[in-house]
Amino acid sequence: MKDKCGVFGIFGHEEASWLTYLGLYALQHRGQEGTGICSTDGRRLHVHRDQGLVAEAYRGETFQHLPGHGANSTSGAGSLSNLQPLLASYRDGTIALAHNGNLVNARELHEECEHLGSIFQTTVDSEVIVHLVARAKPPDLGGRLLQALSRVRGAYSLVALTPDRMIGIRDPHGFRPLCLGKLDRAWVLASESCALDLLDAEYVREVEPGEMVTVTQEGLETRRFGGDASRSECIFEHVYFARPDSRAFGRGVNEVRVRLGRQLAREHPAEADVVMAVPDSSNAAALGFSQEAQIPLEHGLIRNHYVGRTFISPSQNLRNLGVRLKYNAVREVVEGRSVVVVDDSVVRGTTSRSLMRIVREAGARAIHFRVSSPPVKHPCYYGIDMPTYDELVANQRTLEEIRDYIGVDSLGYLSTEGMLRAVRGEDASGACAACFTGEYPVRWKRAPSKSDFEVETPEKV
Amino acid sequence: MKDKCGVFGIFGHEEASWLTYLGLYALQHRGQEGTGICSTDGRRLHVHRDQGLVAEAYRGETFQHLPGHGANSTSGAGSLSNLQPLLASYRDGTIALAHNGNLVNARELHEECEHLGSIFQTTVDSEVIVHLVARAKPPDLGGRLLQALSRVRGAYSLVALTPDRMIGIRDPHGFRPLCLGKLDRAWVLASESCALDLLDAEYVREVEPGEMVTVTQEGLETRRFGGDASRSECIFEHVYFARPDSRAFGRGVNEVRVRLGRQLAREHPAEADVVMAVPDSSNAAALGFSQEAQIPLEHGLIRNHYVGRTFISPSQNLRNLGVRLKYNAVREVVEGRSVVVVDDSVVRGTTSRSLMRIVREAGARAIHFRVSSPPVKHPCYYGIDMPTYDELVANQRTLEEIRDYIGVDSLGYLSTEGMLRAVRGEDASGACAACFTGEYPVRWKRAPSKSDFEVETPEKV
Amino acid sequence: MKDKCGVFGIFGHEEASWLTYLGLYALQHRGQEGTGICSTDGRRLHVHRDQGLVAEAYRGETFQHLPGHGANSTSGAGSLSNLQPLLASYRDGTIALAHNGNLVNARELHEECEHLGSIFQTTVDSEVIVHLVARAKPPDLGGRLLQALSRVRGAYSLVALTPDRMIGIRDPHGFRPLCLGKLDRAWVLASESCALDLLDAEYVREVEPGEMVTVTQEGLETRRFGGDASRSECIFEHVYFARPDSRAFGRGVNEVRVRLGRQLAREHPAEADVVMAVPDSSNAAALGFSQEAQIPLEHGLIRNHYVGRTFISPSQNLRNLGVRLKYNAVREVVEGRSVVVVDDSVVRGTTSRSLMRIVREAGARAIHFRVSSPPVKHPCYYGIDMPTYDELVANQRTLEEIRDYIGVDSLGYLSTEGMLRAVRGEDASGACAACFTGEYPVRWKRAPSKSDFEVETPEKV
Amino acid sequence: MKDKCGVFGIFGHEEASWLTYLGLYALQHRGQEGTGICSTDGRRLHVHRDQGLVAEAYRGETFQHLPGHGANSTSGAGSLSNLQPLLASYRDGTIALAHNGNLVNARELHEECEHLGSIFQTTVDSEVIVHLVARAKPPDLGGRLLQALSRVRGAYSLVALTPDRMIGIRDPHGFRPLCLGKLDRAWVLASESCALDLLDAEYVREVEPGEMVTVTQEGLETRRFGGDASRSECIFEHVYFARPDSRAFGRGVNEVRVRLGRQLAREHPAEADVVMAVPDSSNAAALGFSQEAQIPLEHGLIRNHYVGRTFISPSQNLRNLGVRLKYNAVREVVEGRSVVVVDDSVVRGTTSRSLMRIVREAGARAIHFRVSSPPVKHPCYYGIDMPTYDELVANQRTLEEIRDYIGVDSLGYLSTEGMLRAVRGEDASGACAACFTGEYPVRWKRAPSKSDFEVETPEKV
Repeated sequence: MKDKCGVFGIFGHEEASWLTYLGLYALQHRGQEGTGICSTDGRRLHVHRDQGLVAEAYRGETFQHLPGHGANSTSGAGSLSNLQPLLASYRDGTIALAHNGNLVNARELHEECEHLGSIFQTTVDSEVIVHLVARAKPPDLGGRLLQALSRVRGAYSLVALTPDRMIGIRDPHGFRPLCLGKLDRAWVLASESCALDLLDAEYVREVEPGEMVTVTQEGLETRRFGGDASRSECIFEHVYFARPDSRAFGRGVNEVRVRLGRQLAREHPAEADVVMAVPDSSNAAALGFSQEAQIPLEHGLIRNHYVGRTFISPSQNLRNLGVRLKYNAVREVVEGRSVVVVDDSVVRGTTSRSLMRIVREAGARAIHFRVSSPPVKHPCYYGIDMPTYDELVANQRTLEEIRDYIGVDSLGYLSTEGMLRAVRGEDASGACAACFTGEYPVRWKRAPSKSDFEVETPEKV
Repeated sequence: MKDKCGVFGIFGHEEASWLTYLGLYALQHRGQEGTGICSTDGRRLHVHRDQGLVAEAYRGETFQHLPGHGANSTSGAGSLSNLQPLLASYRDGTIALAHNGNLVNARELHEECEHLGSIFQTTVDSEVIVHLVARAKPPDLGGRLLQALSRVRGAYSLVALTPDRMIGIRDPHGFRPLCLGKLDRAWVLASESCALDLLDAEYVREVEPGEMVTVTQEGLETRRFGGDASRSECIFEHVYFARPDSRAFGRGVNEVRVRLGRQLAREHPAEADVVMAVPDSSNAAALGFSQEAQIPLEHGLIRNHYVGRTFISPSQNLRNLGVRLKYNAVREVVEGRSVVVVDDSVVRGTTSRSLMRIVREAGARAIHFRVSSPPVKHPCYYGIDMPTYDELVANQRTLEEIRDYIGVDSLGYLSTEGMLRAVRGEDASGACAACFTGEYPVRWKRAPSKSDFEVETPEKV
Repeated sequence: MKDKCGVFGIFGHEEASWLTYLGLYALQHRGQEGTGICSTDGRRLHVHRDQGLVAEAYRGETFQHLPGHGANSTSGAGSLSNLQPLLASYRDGTIALAHNGNLVNARELHEECEHLGSIFQTTVDSEVIVHLVARAKPPDLGGRLLQALSRVRGAYSLVALTPDRMIGIRDPHGFRPLCLGKLDRAWVLASESCALDLLDAEYVREVEPGEMVTVTQEGLETRRFGGDASRSECIFEHVYFARPDSRAFGRGVNEVRVRLGRQLAREHPAEADVVMAVPDSSNAAALGFSQEAQIPLEHGLIRNHYVGRTFISPSQNLRNLGVRLKYNAVREVVEGRSVVVVDDSVVRGTTSRSLMRIVREAGARAIHFRVSSPPVKHPCYYGIDMPTYDELVANQRTLEEIRDYIGVDSLGYLSTEGMLRAVRGEDASGACAACFTGEYPVRWKRAPSKSDFEVETPEKV
Repeated sequence: MKDKCGVFGIFGHEEASWLTYLGLYALQHRGQEGTGICSTDGRRLHVHRDQGLVAEAYRGETFQHLPGHGANSTSGAGSLSNLQPLLASYRDGTIALAHNGNLVNARELHEECEHLGSIFQTTVDSEVIVHLVARAKPPDLGGRLLQALSRVRGAYSLVALTPDRMIGIRDPHGFRPLCLGKLDRAWVLASESCALDLLDAEYVREVEPGEMVTVTQEGLETRRFGGDASRSECIFEHVYFARPDSRAFGRGVNEVRVRLGRQLAREHPAEADVVMAVPDSSNAAALGFSQEAQIPLEHGLIRNHYVGRTFISPSQNLRNLGVRLKYNAVREVVEGRSVVVVDDSVVRGTTSRSLMRIVREAGARAIHFRVSSPPVKHPCYYGIDMPTYDELVANQRTLEEIRDYIGVDSLGYLSTEGMLRAVRGEDASGACAACFTGEYPVRWKRAPSKSDFEVETPEKV
């Protein structure tokens, strides 16, 4: 299963679990359905996991039950049975594993382990990895992990915790980000650098693709594995997923997005009175477009951040209510004008369609919709939660059909080349852009599915 | 007591309570501590009130208990005993009253009513008004309300509901906003027009200062009262409080804020590499500053919207944690540069101080802090929740002392004249800017206090 | 409105609010829908009220918000708007009032107060009383209360709290119980003596009908009022409502119930193999029956105390599920035998009917149903929550019809005379047995109704 | 780990999950910390598990997520990670396992499985069993289960569910109860027969020690296993644990307890005025004692069933508060009298000590404490949650020392022989009375411990 989430760990600090809780706030945008923290006091592991947002899942007393100087955690997906970190005992000890990514051969490995007599209690990939660790031969945890991961194919950024150490690992392709920081004498691992900033921890560097860093009381050691796999850093992190104040894959996200917007303006200029963003994820791209196109930027769409789960009247017929609750147009910015609306990406197209209707009803004379990435035409099998082919608006539709569906006067997607150059400069080869191109860096035998497992675990209700 | 909140009402729609619940989402920024909805089925009033956000206080079943074609509501302040709308019976019927504002003679009227034998169960101003309504002589509700309000001094935008009508009122000075909309055959009242947009209701106009509109099954009637009081529309709504996609006092809020930023640039230019906003409330002012100053705008501060109540470690020593949880700087925008940071207003100065430290630590070479309003030097007694004199950073501090406290290289506040012109054009006289100038349009006998009442009602815990 | 509840107060103890919380546990059987505690620190009153059981409505932190040496409280009825104690300010101070009982002229007084300009925010009788207090002339609270109560007719056991005193009052007829205790130097008031036992407080005596006791830092004073009203102590407290370990009206409840059972056996003997109780409220009466009838007692019905709110399948067709969840028969006690089932009272008859079906299905050869009180034929207007005439099984039904409805082989109700003698010995004249006899000791102008008020306040959902 | 709980299952009914929820209410006394239901729709298993009481853990919507015609469930122990039923996939399918009991070689098997490469995510014995099932060779589930259970030693009453069948198993010694019922065409399994009664299901028989019953759409099949193990039915179920309206091991619990009380009276008569029970679990034994001793039974102790988790004042010095909240004495029954207090068992002795103080303070002249079972001197390793040796009051204390500790005038425990005869008649050899005798029917290599596992999973807070 796709483990869309943020991972975090800290080792060597007396308030480890409390700091990891703060770190989760900074990674909340990576997953909102469930969260967990596991801590070590040197002898045992302690865990708290629950559904919901970080702000809902922990209380003051929780941290009394999470003592110790080391902790790892996730904020991410989560039915009650699938909450991470996954905590298990095996022959030589106990381990808590937090995983961001997606394994393409999880199903085969799952079956292989079952064939050897293992049982599975969740559908998260972490469990597959822990099974392989338990079956690995080397006597040390590092060796076990590397042997286990030699069987695994796909995307994984891991933070593992045992009673006496924390280990951070990125897969040899480096699909998902993971960075290393320092807070006084403690080492910190986090999906994005914004979590380091929150703790006032120093950003040290990315964990490299194919690198395993091990932190103990003695300090940090590093090991390389995975041979010379091609680097395949997820382009979608820069396009949409990461926070703009983060560094991801060594590049500032905000900066990259401004370049995407500039490149978009060069590729798809528009005659318009004003440029506006779909807030907040497209703010930077819209700014870049405005700068390059020399068309003034204005705040034409406002986002309401208070909206959570809402109740729908059975007989309700308010069109686009979900989108309306989240966005509103600023009439005086839009009315009677030709507007460029910049969005970072279009997946299903339904939100774009509703949003453009709101812009149209606010009086726009013409709408030029510009997208700072290419059409999403393929699912992601490496950890981004995307729908199947059927639900992608760009699947088997021409540009003209998409324009018509969304309801705009003109439509421009950034080219793949333009995107890669804007994001990575000369290093375009190091990126995974499979959702745009269909060129999957890591293949599979059987098509990965959303659920590799027959047991359906409904949400807590 | 200061009733910092949003009010909403609808009359003539079969899903009145459900629509008012949606409307509350659009007004949530006006108050987050408690909320209530009262509905009428033509014979009786039904009410649901609870603490917390709109998203927390209502569930699907709630609306089965709020039947009928009319409803009023608030999202705002609220200990359990002070939740609005206030619902009461009196000699001639029952009334539910939702109030945004603050009465400066509440204490005198409270005592006067007590002297006549009344009891008080809350500390909200709505209760004072309902007591006066109950004691008024005229036989009709409109007449009673007008007689009651003739005694009242201060700020009030009211939405009243009885079994057979909804009444909207703005005080003669028009301190607080209230607008009128239409949804099919139903009339809608809302603090801000963004609530109308959400329902796809048509914006009709502001309720005028000194106007009472009455909606029944027969339609809408209007009456004027209060004589020729001077118009005193709250300037702080435009500066900070209202949503940028709203119209307030007939002016688009976003547009006004851009003008404030432009004027600020004219008054306090700066030599700098980049302009950045304190998101989200200063986005428009920063844009205006950038445009006028011809210095590029960039997104140098990022806001995390997931942060709610957090738990603090007893031994924690993370400086500025509260502000850090909410904001982070984008290092590549800030590092090594001279930056203009635009904020809409500075009240206590503590957040600004912490924020500027974050900007400094991100590597800013120089920080030019610009505020798109004058120094807040006086408390508000008309409905904006401001601290006492002692807590205002601009109270008894020179500009140089404030600059030093906040920790910036230069500091510029917008002038009062500049602010008034930017907000109101030629109609500067119609505004209340008392928090900046100390010129209070409505005086009082005894200084209004935060609590007029001895009973302390703690929060639900 | 009927205030079915328990009241409690303590004055002169440093942990007043925490002790009153414990006291509420002992009175929980008197009302489960809502609860509140008000405390005084000598200067101000502090309050916490919430819906639900005592175990649900308070948390550890609550007591930090309820400081001081005095407190009063209720566990009882309660929509969110009607929670007690009612807390209000009036001309000369603030008062928190906890009331158990029911006023028969509440509606007239309500209207009278409204006529004089008062507003009502709840439908509890406490509010009527506070309005009268506020309008009373005497300068001291005691005098005000007595003047207020001179207007009031019906049942009231009150515990009032102000910043500097606690006052306990029983109406001149003494409908509802209220007793006085001592814990070290603190005075305690409680509906039933079991609350004193829990605190290890000494039982001193009943507050007398028409007595007002005032507790201050100086000690306790007493005053009499109400002239020579006839004593009318609720017989239903002894029959069913009070806890068996309490003294009520100076008599031990358990003892009284045993006597009721004995008398029942004399009046309605049965040829049977075994006597069994409907647990727990009929345990004592069944014991008495068994002793007198010389038929062995056995535990033939078991009660499940874990059942709270349950969810019902829409398509469910389990007959008598509500009763089944609560009770089960012990087959080996019942099977093939002729059984006497003793219940303390029968109101609607629906539970009895379901229960007897369970006994029948467990194999009883014959069921002799014996009730240790007469048929309930009239509603109570003095504080016991009974249904209207239409819902009472004994209303307009002959004994034979009731027997047939409940489905038993024989039916015997205790006679009124028998009941009075068993409960009160020679003092039968001092009791109110109106629900059995229709002889109401205090009359009314207009029939008291369940709700005197048009505003319907739904439960919190 | 000790799985103190109730298990339930139903197969062949369209409302399986809703009926199993009702069944859990009847078994709630067997475990209150957590609960879960797993259902099958024929293709997949669906699960809901949560902490707390049955009344708290499920809501109306839950059952929409638990579709199908079969379900199994538990109410029992439970940190979030240890909730049952345990749900897992293995080589040949998925299985949900509900277990009541305790395995004495769980630790060895756990280590053996780990040695073979398995991982453990919980500390419940169900997981050990599922691992063994997964590793078993036979192609059919029944065969697998039997092969797995051939490795297991100790107590287990199991209800297993797979997509197409429900299986009920009792270990060859039959330590824990499990009975079989029929509801229309559906088969039901339950720890106690009271759960059948609630559903109006017919009691068919006990599942036999060493019996496996398999229910599919085709009907019920039975298989025997385990050879000629000696029957060892837990005597403590009859003494204390089971509900009195249940049949356990084919004997009515109430009836047995009455006999225990009679035998107790024969062994330890007392000169006394009255016999009283510690309600509710000792009601039947007290009745038996009273009958045999010809001393009248009275209700001298009252239990408050409303008390759940309570908050304790940090400075509280109310002696015995926990016991006081639960029990109170009826003074008029006790005062000045010589009383026999009958309890079913004494484990730690702390509750007895506090209770007897309450009885003493209520004025008892003499207290003769009688216990309808022998001294508990040994821990249970077969599923009853008892403390370690150190905490047992009868461990290394003489009778006289215990009498002195509890603070009574005389003390009498039932003899082991008396108990066995009262419970089982001539079949005394078929019982496990290890907690009284130390004669453990199933031995172990290493002493079983409370936690076989190093990972501590704190309660949800």
